[in-house]
Amino acid sequence: MSVDLSPTVLAERHRGTLDQALEAARTRAFWSPHPEHPKAYPEAEAGHAAFQALLGHRFPLDQPGTDGWTGSERSPYGIDLGVEYPHADPDALLPAMRAAMPRWREAGPLTRALVCVEILARINARTHEFAHAVMHTTGQAFTMAFQAGGPHAQDRGLEAVAYAFAEQTRTPPEAEWTKPQGKREPLELRKTFTPVPRGIGLVVGCNTFPTWNGYPGLFASLATGNAVLVKPHPRAVLPLALTVAAAREVLAEAGFPPDLVCLAVERPGEGLAKVLALRPEVRLIDYTGSTAFGDWLEQNARQAQVFTEKAGVNTVVIDSTDDYRGMLANLAFSLSLYSGQMCTTPQNLLIPREGIGTDQGKRAFTEVVADLAAAVEGLLGEDARAAALLGALVNPDVKARLEAAAELGEVALASRAVTNPEFPEAVVRTPALIALDSAAPDAGSAFLSECFGPVSFAVAVDSTEAALELLRHTVREKGAMTVSGYTTSPEVERRLEEVCFEECAQLSLNLTGGVFVNQTAAFSDFHGSGGNPAANAALCDAAFVASRFRTVEVRRPA
Amino acid sequence: MSVDLSPTVLAERHRGTLDQALEAARTRAFWSPHPEHPKAYPEAEAGHAAFQALLGHRFPLDQPGTDGWTGSERSPYGIDLGVEYPHADPDALLPAMRAAMPRWREAGPLTRALVCVEILARINARTHEFAHAVMHTTGQAFTMAFQAGGPHAQDRGLEAVAYAFAEQTRTPPEAEWTKPQGKREPLELRKTFTPVPRGIGLVVGCNTFPTWNGYPGLFASLATGNAVLVKPHPRAVLPLALTVAAAREVLAEAGFPPDLVCLAVERPGEGLAKVLALRPEVRLIDYTGSTAFGDWLEQNARQAQVFTEKAGVNTVVIDSTDDYRGMLANLAFSLSLYSGQMCTTPQNLLIPREGIGTDQGKRAFTEVVADLAAAVEGLLGEDARAAALLGALVNPDVKARLEAAAELGEVALASRAVTNPEFPEAVVRTPALIALDSAAPDAGSAFLSECFGPVSFAVAVDSTEAALELLRHTVREKGAMTVSGYTTSPEVERRLEEVCFEECAQLSLNLTGGVFVNQTAAFSDFHGSGGNPAANAALCDAAFVASRFRTVEVRRPA
Repeated sequence: MSVDLSPTVLAERHRGTLDQALEAARTRAFWSPHPEHPKAYPEAEAGHAAFQALLGHRFPLDQPGTDGWTGSERSPYGIDLGVEYPHADPDALLPAMRAAMPRWREAGPLTRALVCVEILARINARTHEFAHAVMHTTGQAFTMAFQAGGPHAQDRGLEAVAYAFAEQTRTPPEAEWTKPQGKREPLELRKTFTPVPRGIGLVVGCNTFPTWNGYPGLFASLATGNAVLVKPHPRAVLPLALTVAAAREVLAEAGFPPDLVCLAVERPGEGLAKVLALRPEVRLIDYTGSTAFGDWLEQNARQAQVFTEKAGVNTVVIDSTDDYRGMLANLAFSLSLYSGQMCTTPQNLLIPREGIGTDQGKRAFTEVVADLAAAVEGLLGEDARAAALLGALVNPDVKARLEAAAELGEVALASRAVTNPEFPEAVVRTPALIALDSAAPDAGSAFLSECFGPVSFAVAVDSTEAALELLRHTVREKGAMTVSGYTTSPEVERRLEEVCFEECAQLSLNLTGGVFVNQTAAFSDFHGSGGNPAANAALCDAAFVASRFRTVEVRRPA
Repeated sequence: MSVDLSPTVLAERHRGTLDQALEAARTRAFWSPHPEHPKAYPEAEAGHAAFQALLGHRFPLDQPGTDGWTGSERSPYGIDLGVEYPHADPDALLPAMRAAMPRWREAGPLTRALVCVEILARINARTHEFAHAVMHTTGQAFTMAFQAGGPHAQDRGLEAVAYAFAEQTRTPPEAEWTKPQGKREPLELRKTFTPVPRGIGLVVGCNTFPTWNGYPGLFASLATGNAVLVKPHPRAVLPLALTVAAAREVLAEAGFPPDLVCLAVERPGEGLAKVLALRPEVRLIDYTGSTAFGDWLEQNARQAQVFTEKAGVNTVVIDSTDDYRGMLANLAFSLSLYSGQMCTTPQNLLIPREGIGTDQGKRAFTEVVADLAAAVEGLLGEDARAAALLGALVNPDVKARLEAAAELGEVALASRAVTNPEFPEAVVRTPALIALDSAAPDAGSAFLSECFGPVSFAVAVDSTEAALELLRHTVREKGAMTVSGYTTSPEVERRLEEVCFEECAQLSLNLTGGVFVNQTAAFSDFHGSGGNPAANAALCDAAFVASRFRTVEVRRPA
């Protein structure tokens, strides 16, 4: 077999990037090899054309065990994608994937890492094409689909590759061991240490962030020597199909069996994730989605290491601020971005009933709520701008939840329909803000479960003290991907930190500018903590990669 | 509170040791700060006296929630220890332990590591006392109790501390993050990263190696900020009670609540491990013991990270050797050490029916078996020497299994009773070697499950090829802590390695001298792989520590 991508070529291209990624993860300073501005990528038109050329066709993947074709994606912007994907017989596909693994194991951690970086580089070069695919499966607005689905997702993938490489190379490949024995000859052994894979890694993709949430697990498993089977959400197949195709292309060029990365698309109602998750060959599972299925995986897929990101309830504690306008603007943006369809969007804003201190004087609960509603209205007043921020509702469930939310309390800000001039069929809605009093009967039943989508609750509480206790209770019982706080009091700040340390939640304080609690940056920010019910893993830390491989030692007399 | 052990004092004493441990784990070269020869410890008589002084008394531990006293240890050497330990009410003890955690978290990774090293140093200084306690709970002979229960266990504890420290300090405590924004002002954040504990770590001790198997989990959990509750095996309480007392003493002197480390001794038949394992406060469990209870923990203690070492079937593949005498001597020692009561003792010796090539010519299966039997007899021919190697049977179950083994095949070497002149009540038995043919009906039912104790099976197989397949099957289905191989063929060596890579087992090749497959050295050898059914964790790697804490990030505008 001719190998276009030799280890030497790969090292010349990517060793520097890998080293920079390792250094960034160590310092946590800002770094990315993937520019986030669309203009940094010249192939805008070609990328759009490439996306268009996919529509209405079969998506070829030369995988073993293909026993039919399936696919029924419809864009939240109103386009039937009409793409069909190969449907695989697991009894044929999984053995082929396992058979591909020994060569990948033998390649060693560095070559595996460099091949992964090349895959990401190929994907990066096609970011415009991926952006359209993400946009038309998730309902994200184009700019967000471009950034979060492109460079930011690629960053998270590269971060996982770097962590995987670091973890596999902490133990040297070989060592001499000489134990003194007093006057006798020393004992001498020659030892080798080989990272070996677990088996097949299953990535169960989500509807809203197929690449951003899919890449960490995919690349962590692949870089640690495992084969990876990608089972996309049936409504968001295309971005992951493109990813699998890119991976297979690079693997083949580097002289490895492409079946190390395969796609498993389900027929309607097939329940394929459950079937695959229980296969003995599957030893790693990465899942993002509902708590019900995440819990099912953790309970039932006992042959596998299971990494889950599930539902949570994100809280903002508002005690006081020295930049009232900045706070309102920041929160308005956070609530609006992608119609609140982010696992990191704040849901509950806890505000003392008596009000908060601000640089504009004391503001009562009702005033804060009204001012925040006005800030959201101001931000989204113009339809074109609103659509570019909101994107589209990803599916009818979100719309139904939004419509039901008005019954849950006093509507402080009603959701309104926005028309997207380019895609009039898109369901675009501004966020609703529901005011509640925590002391009201059954108030908790409204805001103490995840209401995924453009619905937030402004909750009047007795005091900042009560807000902290409610925060603690929420994180402990419901989990949280993010916690946010506004305060000018060092004591309140300290106590917010204490609650987050004890309940294990990631905290953002006094964000009033261009950084939003919804967003985390690879190589610097952890996404989730892995220590509360919202997720059992964090993106990305050593625990996310260290158990994806094992080290086999062979020792011989020297 | 006056603090005798300030961070400065601790750093002066132990920072060098910690750094050396980190370096040894990185290079895998031989290193230990704990000499293994009893003569290196001057306090032999004082240690014996200290042990004697414990007998027949209550063991005081000033723990909260003590609601009675319990204890009924009887030495396998025939002494009733007569020690009673506090029995704890979990409803009082666990909240007290949780209340102790914030100060420990605030101390940070370095201080925690140094306190742990101080605990190990205190234990090391009392190694003679611990050796008697280990001997009279496990039945190990004194020298082994001294070495494995003392310096080697302390090494494994220190190794866990080093890994825990390294993992917690990979992310810096704080970072500045500046993201360029083209012509606009950059986004700037100040970030802190704080390792936070999971909760309470439960260590469920075993009968045979209470310290060696207990210390890794105990120190890994403690060094990562958790409180640790030690639930010893009811027949091997004293070594862990001494450990808990030492830890509490050091914690108090360093200004921390001693309730960070507590002891939970069960009343007869209480089933305390099951109760504690399901408590919501318990978030980490380390267990060594039967597969049945290990599986139960993995299935049921879903609120916790569970690290288990369970039963396995260790195989030796004998293909050929260029040092036949050395091989026989090495195997004879491995089978005899502590009466085969090690999780690492070889059980099945797979030998081609037609025989093996050796430096003394071809040897038929029956000859190899007879020569090995003779080697064991030679090694154990003299009672005093035999007793010093065999120790005593740890409990009546082992004796019953040994007696039943004669029915399982042809007795190639019968077990014989040995008298220990110092402790005539000790049940001392030489190992039995049972010959079987793998082709015989039901042969597998005899040797394909763990027969813990001084019983090994010499199994005739069709060929080395068949031995490799049987090895693969055994590891995959039954698990293995160790695999051993003897061959002069590079091809067989390669294929042995391949099986161990694919089935994830630790391999020792051609051991003919003073290194035995049963023994692993901390900082260099991995104990178990964590990738086959014998254990879900390896001692010690990053995966053993990385999920025992989480990292909480707090970010603020800079």
